Amino acid sequence: MKAIIYNGPFNVTVKNVPDAKIERPGDALIRITTTNICGSDLHMYEGRTSFEEGRIFGHENMGEVVEVGQGVERIKVGDRVCMPFNVGCGFCENCEKGLTGFCLTANPGSAGAAYGFAEMGPWDGGQAELLRVPFADFNCLVLPEDAAEKEEDYVMLSDIFPTGWHATELAGLRPGESVAIYGAGPVGLMAAHSAIIKGASQVFVIDTHSDRLALAEQFGATPVNAAGDEAVQKILELTDGRGTDCGCECVGYQCCNKHGHEDNSATMNSLVASTKATGGIGVVGVFVPQDPAAESDLAKEGKMPFDFGSFWFKGQSIRTGQANVKAYNRQLARLIHHDKASPGRIISHRLSLDEAPEGYKNFDSRAPGWTKVILKP
Amino acid sequence: MKAIIYNGPFNVTVKNVPDAKIERPGDALIRITTTNICGSDLHMYEGRTSFEEGRIFGHENMGEVVEVGQGVERIKVGDRVCMPFNVGCGFCENCEKGLTGFCLTANPGSAGAAYGFAEMGPWDGGQAELLRVPFADFNCLVLPEDAAEKEEDYVMLSDIFPTGWHATELAGLRPGESVAIYGAGPVGLMAAHSAIIKGASQVFVIDTHSDRLALAEQFGATPVNAAGDEAVQKILELTDGRGTDCGCECVGYQCCNKHGHEDNSATMNSLVASTKATGGIGVVGVFVPQDPAAESDLAKEGKMPFDFGSFWFKGQSIRTGQANVKAYNRQLARLIHHDKASPGRIISHRLSLDEAPEGYKNFDSRAPGWTKVILKP
Amino acid sequence: MKAIIYNGPFNVTVKNVPDAKIERPGDALIRITTTNICGSDLHMYEGRTSFEEGRIFGHENMGEVVEVGQGVERIKVGDRVCMPFNVGCGFCENCEKGLTGFCLTANPGSAGAAYGFAEMGPWDGGQAELLRVPFADFNCLVLPEDAAEKEEDYVMLSDIFPTGWHATELAGLRPGESVAIYGAGPVGLMAAHSAIIKGASQVFVIDTHSDRLALAEQFGATPVNAAGDEAVQKILELTDGRGTDCGCECVGYQCCNKHGHEDNSATMNSLVASTKATGGIGVVGVFVPQDPAAESDLAKEGKMPFDFGSFWFKGQSIRTGQANVKAYNRQLARLIHHDKASPGRIISHRLSLDEAPEGYKNFDSRAPGWTKVILKP
Amino acid sequence: MKAIIYNGPFNVTVKNVPDAKIERPGDALIRITTTNICGSDLHMYEGRTSFEEGRIFGHENMGEVVEVGQGVERIKVGDRVCMPFNVGCGFCENCEKGLTGFCLTANPGSAGAAYGFAEMGPWDGGQAELLRVPFADFNCLVLPEDAAEKEEDYVMLSDIFPTGWHATELAGLRPGESVAIYGAGPVGLMAAHSAIIKGASQVFVIDTHSDRLALAEQFGATPVNAAGDEAVQKILELTDGRGTDCGCECVGYQCCNKHGHEDNSATMNSLVASTKATGGIGVVGVFVPQDPAAESDLAKEGKMPFDFGSFWFKGQSIRTGQANVKAYNRQLARLIHHDKASPGRIISHRLSLDEAPEGYKNFDSRAPGWTKVILKP
Repeated sequence: MKAIIYNGPFNVTVKNVPDAKIERPGDALIRITTTNICGSDLHMYEGRTSFEEGRIFGHENMGEVVEVGQGVERIKVGDRVCMPFNVGCGFCENCEKGLTGFCLTANPGSAGAAYGFAEMGPWDGGQAELLRVPFADFNCLVLPEDAAEKEEDYVMLSDIFPTGWHATELAGLRPGESVAIYGAGPVGLMAAHSAIIKGASQVFVIDTHSDRLALAEQFGATPVNAAGDEAVQKILELTDGRGTDCGCECVGYQCCNKHGHEDNSATMNSLVASTKATGGIGVVGVFVPQDPAAESDLAKEGKMPFDFGSFWFKGQSIRTGQANVKAYNRQLARLIHHDKASPGRIISHRLSLDEAPEGYKNFDSRAPGWTKVILKP
Repeated sequence: MKAIIYNGPFNVTVKNVPDAKIERPGDALIRITTTNICGSDLHMYEGRTSFEEGRIFGHENMGEVVEVGQGVERIKVGDRVCMPFNVGCGFCENCEKGLTGFCLTANPGSAGAAYGFAEMGPWDGGQAELLRVPFADFNCLVLPEDAAEKEEDYVMLSDIFPTGWHATELAGLRPGESVAIYGAGPVGLMAAHSAIIKGASQVFVIDTHSDRLALAEQFGATPVNAAGDEAVQKILELTDGRGTDCGCECVGYQCCNKHGHEDNSATMNSLVASTKATGGIGVVGVFVPQDPAAESDLAKEGKMPFDFGSFWFKGQSIRTGQANVKAYNRQLARLIHHDKASPGRIISHRLSLDEAPEGYKNFDSRAPGWTKVILKP
Repeated sequence: MKAIIYNGPFNVTVKNVPDAKIERPGDALIRITTTNICGSDLHMYEGRTSFEEGRIFGHENMGEVVEVGQGVERIKVGDRVCMPFNVGCGFCENCEKGLTGFCLTANPGSAGAAYGFAEMGPWDGGQAELLRVPFADFNCLVLPEDAAEKEEDYVMLSDIFPTGWHATELAGLRPGESVAIYGAGPVGLMAAHSAIIKGASQVFVIDTHSDRLALAEQFGATPVNAAGDEAVQKILELTDGRGTDCGCECVGYQCCNKHGHEDNSATMNSLVASTKATGGIGVVGVFVPQDPAAESDLAKEGKMPFDFGSFWFKGQSIRTGQANVKAYNRQLARLIHHDKASPGRIISHRLSLDEAPEGYKNFDSRAPGWTKVILKP
Repeated sequence: MKAIIYNGPFNVTVKNVPDAKIERPGDALIRITTTNICGSDLHMYEGRTSFEEGRIFGHENMGEVVEVGQGVERIKVGDRVCMPFNVGCGFCENCEKGLTGFCLTANPGSAGAAYGFAEMGPWDGGQAELLRVPFADFNCLVLPEDAAEKEEDYVMLSDIFPTGWHATELAGLRPGESVAIYGAGPVGLMAAHSAIIKGASQVFVIDTHSDRLALAEQFGATPVNAAGDEAVQKILELTDGRGTDCGCECVGYQCCNKHGHEDNSATMNSLVASTKATGGIGVVGVFVPQDPAAESDLAKEGKMPFDFGSFWFKGQSIRTGQANVKAYNRQLARLIHHDKASPGRIISHRLSLDEAPEGYKNFDSRAPGWTKVILKP
């Protein structure tokens, strides 16, 4: 089968590799119909992780079931399914609590597994023609009859829509409240979409890319084109000096200060400043325990100069981590099915597998208008 | 009346000052029967805050109502009452949600007020013969008929028992879980007492003062006499490598690394390491937005080199802040009344007001056996 | 001042009575600008309660502060304010938890007080030119600068908008879920408005009055014109046989079976049948401990033949009670202020005080088109 | 293998039946070491359910794994395991939320499955030498090294300890609160044990069997030997007239009024009366949708004359249903492992399979001292 292979920093190619296949009784084999390039693929693409050369990318996957193992009870050949980016077993202490982003089985020795992802277990990615899905009864979301018609919406259930939603959950956003979302990338836009669906009274999206902010505005958010102290000031003004009720970090460790230099504390310290006392901050942007390529010594060790004193004095809270996609994907599918959500609106480019290398290049360089790339194998 | 006055770093004296009195219709006047010296008084005593010379110390207060204003509806002369250290108005956006530690009325321009406390509003402290209590119907907890008999337990409802309890709430501790409590001072000991009352399966208290660890053991906790990586290793061993389900910070910004130097990140980074993935961390130790007397440049600005990468990768959460005492004091009073809690056990010294200066000196120097000092005006 | 007085069953008149005035230091005096007739006024109007002759009706009140007592700290003369229908003290065990609908102070011997309401304390109603508001700092919501412009929306914060919202909270509705709301009266319509703001995927409103169902549809809900088993069947069909995720009771003890006879179990037993296993049911329709005028012996004693067996077997839950208005009114005010909610849309009639008797008569008879009546003193 | 077979009302025998065996790749085969007789077995034993003749009883099972299917990933031969009485699949909409008592897969057309239980699916019971466990990775709790030593405690994790715990969860019990538990049978006693572990300040157990009340007292609860209004009065007196903060129903539909006649509303109406306004009521006693053998017409239809008016006026809540055992069994196992819980104390009789018929007879007749019977195959 064809697959997108990582060959080293800034180098991906389409190659022929052996077909994915059923290996355990609980597996299902999926023919991929749509698979997205994610912002977190770019960390690996740039060589900023331990992702091994030769591996297949792709953790945002949707397709059709073509074969199931003997132990599969629920999933049937022909089902249209969307897979969470996390691989969960369904029976470990974390999965049974719904913390499927921190499965203790699928990536032994760590907590949390994913398809085609650095440090997240041995699972091949889905930027390919076929994908093996382990614990298939647990990991496949079977879609309703409009699966094909709304494929571009449903595929977003694999990662960015639940991840954006998760940001607002971690922040503790409640209806009627205000929220500041740092980052207008795909996840930030999905956080804005989520916040509006949930009945937020004010939704601010902070970024310095005007094309992405324009999208935020289309979703109904208020764009704030600023960074650092200036962004904080604008948010305080827009909230009568109170600060927002809560905030979301949707950028991650490669965030930059107002001079455009990487500063892993830039968004977090702004969030502490622009969020009211007792407010919650949800962090879904990726931060890493080590970052050898970072500029500062602290950042190399995964540390940041965090404004803990203000954070504590204001009695705020931070909740973090990869989204437990299964905690949300059924209800979000219903929102799509009943025309209450349309996450596919952010798609800017639809490419074939063969065009993927070019897609990676443009998406990574934040080429204007390259908001979200999907691949159709 | 006699009162304990701050005269500058390491200098408190007993002075005669004008009697506290009713100033507004909602006030009550309390004759203090017990008032404690708190660990956070020591930050002020050492001159590490902006506390003004001439002010009266004392935010852990209990006494008898001797007069009430015309607008007081509930509190009666003769009532035995214990006051939360926080001053709340009862009607602002935070107080009405139960966030009485972040009252927006009682310390205008900030969130949160207290008696005799730096940066927490104009309210006099209660280390004196009389105390004016504003918004008295809201701020006085009326005690049951065993108030005098169990005075040494009930007085702990003013601060350290609810604050220790709050640590376990912020950590998200649930029955059957394990918890690591950093710091065996009064608040850490109260967190341990709380965790055990709540049905924790394992309660570790980490410190390097053996006299305080002995008290922790008397409360039923497992003492861990270590710091830094060594403490983390011991906790991992005691939890079969899993780490604790959650953790509590009960030390604050003057915490020290294993070499005895102040390092404001010492306890937080250990907590990230010794807490399991997805675990919660509750922080009631005081951290400050500025600390001009700190050793490091980051600490001077209230920042710490925080291990945010590991924290995020583990999907943990941090909740912080001063305890909203009123959220807990009624139920904790019932635990005391029904003999299910006995926080007064930690008292080591009972002094008169005149002996208070000596008490401050010994408590501040962590003189062996000086665990908790109460004053009887 | 002029006021609407209850003279006995089906008999209200406008009378001149002594002006309301400040009686305690915490009181405020309000000049009423809008006051609504509520469906629960009709229970009293029909003589189905112990409401005393000579009392003033009116618990949905908005107006301008014209005087404050000496103990009032926050509210100022000239403030535009909306009062929750519940009278709360702010400092009892229930108020301090936010359970302001169950204040233990304002109606001694019971839990919960209201203006102009049977069994809810001595407080005069606001269907008058002036209203005395006790514990004014706690009970007055100060409105923003668009208070007058959006008066018809803000006045709904006194009762029906928070009560409809409360129904969805008690039901445990979460975004993406489906909900069945029994009753298309003002509260049911507000529950539908609330559910849609909160991101429900499907909102059904069940009633047999087509004019009210038409309004439900305007709010974005799916009308179900049926009762009893027929309503249940329709809901099951519309949810692929699953039943709704949760349900709301917005009718109360005078609900009727499909033959038009009062049957206090009609809506509750339908809710058990149309709600999925494990689903929640929120009940804001009023049920009473005694109902001497009821047809059945059980109903006279406030009992109903409830389908507890099915309820238990399905593992459902019921949460009940009058709305704690203060738990919601600030955030709902922000939704109105930011144009995310418009509860005033349900108003059908705007009358003077002098026209109120006619308004009561028509509203009580469910005259077509009489959805919601507001009075402008 | 030997197994306990139901032959009709009041008639069970030990018979030889074909060995249980692996049927699907996800199954495990367990050699039963302990299996309990449960109070809910008695409903079936008495012929008050649709339980089919010829079926094997037993849903409280513990044992050793002797064989696993090819699709089993976690459970190993030799593991000591305890099975929740509920059979869950792990991947349906309810199981993935932790609502394993309402699995949509294991009992198609209904919600919730169990071993050897009427209306709960085709699964054989474990009062036998061997038990087939489906979805074994999900349904088996692997016990720690002290499994054999504390077998009599761990076996209670199958049902009554989590069910008693669930009662207190459904009631919303929080530390420091008071709770009234109706029923001193095994589940009521476990609810009392749970409430005390969780830090309740007052735990009342209401029953009229003095031998069982004596056990309640040994667990630290306050026994209340009364029924109906008299029980309510006693509880009000013991709580200074406030009523308890919450309450638990641990009897079920065969509860009796003070004259000893079955009255399915007896405990629920008492709970409404003895619980404070806004309090929660948790119901784990079994209630059934139909009860043809009942005395009253309402009860035959599964209905009860419920005091809904008082319930609503007090703003109370009811949560119900079978325990989702997996939501609790890991943490409860840790409480047992660390000597914080000892549910096995309630065992009164340890019988062989051959003695089981005699055990059923005595347990069903509430013979004095027959509190809890375990079988050792």
